[in-house]
Amino acid sequence: MIMDLQKRKELKKKLYTIIFKTDTEEGKRFDIILLNVILLSVILAAIESVVAFNARYALPFRICEWIITILFTIEYATRIYCSPNRKKYIFSVYGIIDLLSILPFFIGILYSSTHYLIVIRALRLLRIFRILKLTHFLKEGNHLVDSLRRSVKKIMIFTYFIMILVTILGALMYLVEGSVNPSFSNIPKSIYWAVVTITTVGYGDITPITFLGQTISVIVMLLGYSILAVPTGIISSELIKPLRKKNITCPNCGENKHEADASYCKNCGTFLPHNNNNLS
Amino acid sequence: MIMDLQKRKELKKKLYTIIFKTDTEEGKRFDIILLNVILLSVILAAIESVVAFNARYALPFRICEWIITILFTIEYATRIYCSPNRKKYIFSVYGIIDLLSILPFFIGILYSSTHYLIVIRALRLLRIFRILKLTHFLKEGNHLVDSLRRSVKKIMIFTYFIMILVTILGALMYLVEGSVNPSFSNIPKSIYWAVVTITTVGYGDITPITFLGQTISVIVMLLGYSILAVPTGIISSELIKPLRKKNITCPNCGENKHEADASYCKNCGTFLPHNNNNLS
Amino acid sequence: MIMDLQKRKELKKKLYTIIFKTDTEEGKRFDIILLNVILLSVILAAIESVVAFNARYALPFRICEWIITILFTIEYATRIYCSPNRKKYIFSVYGIIDLLSILPFFIGILYSSTHYLIVIRALRLLRIFRILKLTHFLKEGNHLVDSLRRSVKKIMIFTYFIMILVTILGALMYLVEGSVNPSFSNIPKSIYWAVVTITTVGYGDITPITFLGQTISVIVMLLGYSILAVPTGIISSELIKPLRKKNITCPNCGENKHEADASYCKNCGTFLPHNNNNLS
Amino acid sequence: MIMDLQKRKELKKKLYTIIFKTDTEEGKRFDIILLNVILLSVILAAIESVVAFNARYALPFRICEWIITILFTIEYATRIYCSPNRKKYIFSVYGIIDLLSILPFFIGILYSSTHYLIVIRALRLLRIFRILKLTHFLKEGNHLVDSLRRSVKKIMIFTYFIMILVTILGALMYLVEGSVNPSFSNIPKSIYWAVVTITTVGYGDITPITFLGQTISVIVMLLGYSILAVPTGIISSELIKPLRKKNITCPNCGENKHEADASYCKNCGTFLPHNNNNLS
Repeated sequence: MIMDLQKRKELKKKLYTIIFKTDTEEGKRFDIILLNVILLSVILAAIESVVAFNARYALPFRICEWIITILFTIEYATRIYCSPNRKKYIFSVYGIIDLLSILPFFIGILYSSTHYLIVIRALRLLRIFRILKLTHFLKEGNHLVDSLRRSVKKIMIFTYFIMILVTILGALMYLVEGSVNPSFSNIPKSIYWAVVTITTVGYGDITPITFLGQTISVIVMLLGYSILAVPTGIISSELIKPLRKKNITCPNCGENKHEADASYCKNCGTFLPHNNNNLS
Repeated sequence: MIMDLQKRKELKKKLYTIIFKTDTEEGKRFDIILLNVILLSVILAAIESVVAFNARYALPFRICEWIITILFTIEYATRIYCSPNRKKYIFSVYGIIDLLSILPFFIGILYSSTHYLIVIRALRLLRIFRILKLTHFLKEGNHLVDSLRRSVKKIMIFTYFIMILVTILGALMYLVEGSVNPSFSNIPKSIYWAVVTITTVGYGDITPITFLGQTISVIVMLLGYSILAVPTGIISSELIKPLRKKNITCPNCGENKHEADASYCKNCGTFLPHNNNNLS
Repeated sequence: MIMDLQKRKELKKKLYTIIFKTDTEEGKRFDIILLNVILLSVILAAIESVVAFNARYALPFRICEWIITILFTIEYATRIYCSPNRKKYIFSVYGIIDLLSILPFFIGILYSSTHYLIVIRALRLLRIFRILKLTHFLKEGNHLVDSLRRSVKKIMIFTYFIMILVTILGALMYLVEGSVNPSFSNIPKSIYWAVVTITTVGYGDITPITFLGQTISVIVMLLGYSILAVPTGIISSELIKPLRKKNITCPNCGENKHEADASYCKNCGTFLPHNNNNLS
Repeated sequence: MIMDLQKRKELKKKLYTIIFKTDTEEGKRFDIILLNVILLSVILAAIESVVAFNARYALPFRICEWIITILFTIEYATRIYCSPNRKKYIFSVYGIIDLLSILPFFIGILYSSTHYLIVIRALRLLRIFRILKLTHFLKEGNHLVDSLRRSVKKIMIFTYFIMILVTILGALMYLVEGSVNPSFSNIPKSIYWAVVTITTVGYGDITPITFLGQTISVIVMLLGYSILAVPTGIISSELIKPLRKKNITCPNCGENKHEADASYCKNCGTFLPHNNNNLS
């Protein structure tokens, strides 16, 4: 009985290593197979949505989907089984995604309309970032992620400003074009137009037809032109920043934002022993 | 009688603290409520403009609008009442926006066409920047604003150049396409096309159909491609600039590449007298 | 007789100061009036091209144009008359633009179709850069112009590469879509589509309809996405560059690309006397 | 007999110098002529695809093409003949392109549908980069290429992320719009729309029509707006990087921020032994 428990524990540990760990040989192999199955499943869902294909090969598609979903369900169950901290896994981002990627299939049996929600499985592809963490992409990826994280706050202020601007522009265009141009028949549509224009997407499904409307559009475009430059500038400067300052902490005052070639603390004048290129 | 005056003065001061100040507990709470009401009012105006909604729920919408406008009017009156310098408030940017956000409603009673101008209330959302000033967004925001302000002059020269370019291109396309393509039937329209193209918005409501016209378009696009890069470059370099060092020369070793906030020479540890922000 | 010659010489000199110079009081005033007249003339030509306007106010427009053209002709004649080096002026960029801005009017009397070429007058607005040279815009403008000039070579290599890419993509799409999609009926049109797509303009007048065509488009767009980043990167780095290196020339070897804080030539080790912050 | 072999060897060497080398007078002249012929051939193929032209001038076009293809065939044969390492040339990128540029013509005689593949000749224009290598473009070009190469890894991670994002967005829009909007009739089409939108191309051939669809689009656009900034930031920071200094430490004073090409310490004038490119 105890042996059995011991065995089960070992099995659990082994499964954990294969499924959750990414730095062992088996873990890596498992993850690569998993990623390919996810990719296959997403491609299948995409192809299935094409009517012509679907009609002809309805059965094989259905079977493939059944197989993949069963595999995913088994995997999900195993993950819960072998996880040392089940609650943590179930409510983690990856855990929720794993659940969401099998749920639509089972609901789809009852309500066929939700069937295509299985494409949510594409989210599971994000798992690649867990694997990449262990390769040489690590440094690059992290640097990128760090810079983006630092940019987020600034870009959010900026996006908030854009949203106010876009609301005002939308309302203005509604007043100018609304009465003669059915495309600008209400404010939400006009705001949609303003976003389409200011981001330089420019579908052309809603375009101004009056002279005043076109003049305002021209101003909006020239504005959007310069505005587009701001997030780029923010991210560029964040990406350049980390190349500047090393983390040298002053042993006296704790100041830790020194330049790479500083020998003395800029704040209190103490010698920085860390930087031993200078006086060795 | 004197007591009454004293009381009134105190009331005025208290109202001033609540309405105008943003660094007290009550001031903050008031501003957050205000922002939510403004947001609600803007969303209401947007929804109201949708015909289908409007027809069905005309009455409740009207009532909501009445309530919000009365609230805004009371607020505006109180602001004038408790402001220590009334003229300054009334003619300040915020004062004018506050007036503009209630005026269209009252005019709208007489002339219903101006009714939708109440969307101008979206401008009141800019008030958030006053609140943000006091939070930790301050530094970020200001740095951004400073960089943008410094970029404005350069970008204005640049925009002027773009406007000349766009006029010439518009005239050229009018000559080339005008006779065969009704979309290019006059020069203002052609200028509109040139702006749509050079900013890469590309609605597609006006497109060249002749071979020569398409060839010119291709050149314009490749041009616009590089031109789009200029404002981005300007803003990027301005955003990077403040990270650079001021020219502070060390009196001992002559090192002159110190950071703006350095008090001691990074090279020899000598005190930098120039930088008197630190020890004055 | 001699007096007369003397007088004429003085008149010539005075006219030269007014018309050509931009750093005197009269010169500035003349240039500002001139710019406004040019602007008016361009706006007139633009409005005139609108059929509705033209039909109603044909006569006043014609008269205005006559007046402006006569003014420009007098100005052009005076410029030739008072220029100390006539040939140089006539064949200078500004001289040719000045001639081109009056020529279409006179030819337009004979051949009315060339009439709208008078919009070429917009080129005269470039004269503003001559005036700006003398104001505080000088430094900003030159810095910008310098950076752009240095970027031009790199961007030209880049544009050449884009042109090859676009030709190949155009041909490819012609092969893929040509037989089923009338929009891709020949290679020049397909190249036009490739430019429209890769520059993210995206008119939508020519769009792929086959699955393969749309797949190629997706790749082209994701490509164009990254490609768009290159000219921006080039210009950004050029705009940042000039903040780096001062022009310190080595008295020994002539090397002139030293860092701002260099005391010794990086090439031959000679002391750089120019940089006297260091050892004074 | 031996003389003959000697002569042949000399001829081979001479041909090699002319055809393959780009640093001799004859080599340069040959390459420039070749580039012009390639360009002509591409232009011919493009013009030929235009039906109207083709019908009228079918014969002269055919003849031109024959002449050019024969020239290319002779060139290809000569290249194989005089190459010192034939296998290496045949399987090199340039060798394969050279073969591909003549093959479609000969296959086109049998199967006329592949005829237009001769546009693949445009790839031969890439040969210009071999010639440019020897001119003053060298440094610029290489710097650009180096920076781009270093950016590729980061941009690939980024593109992978974009592809997942685009798949999920496509599936989402398919669920939202699919039932009412024939443009979103399947998932691949919706993914195509997502790419068109996020890259700000915005053809407008597929646009949302429901309120929810338009709301999602607005979020996608504002997202794409910031996303567009990332590759630009990556390339910008890579282009700025090489301007930074290598870590060469001076053995005398310890200064470690020298430029990559410095031979002497900028601070004290000591010779830097590390940098042995200069005096070896």
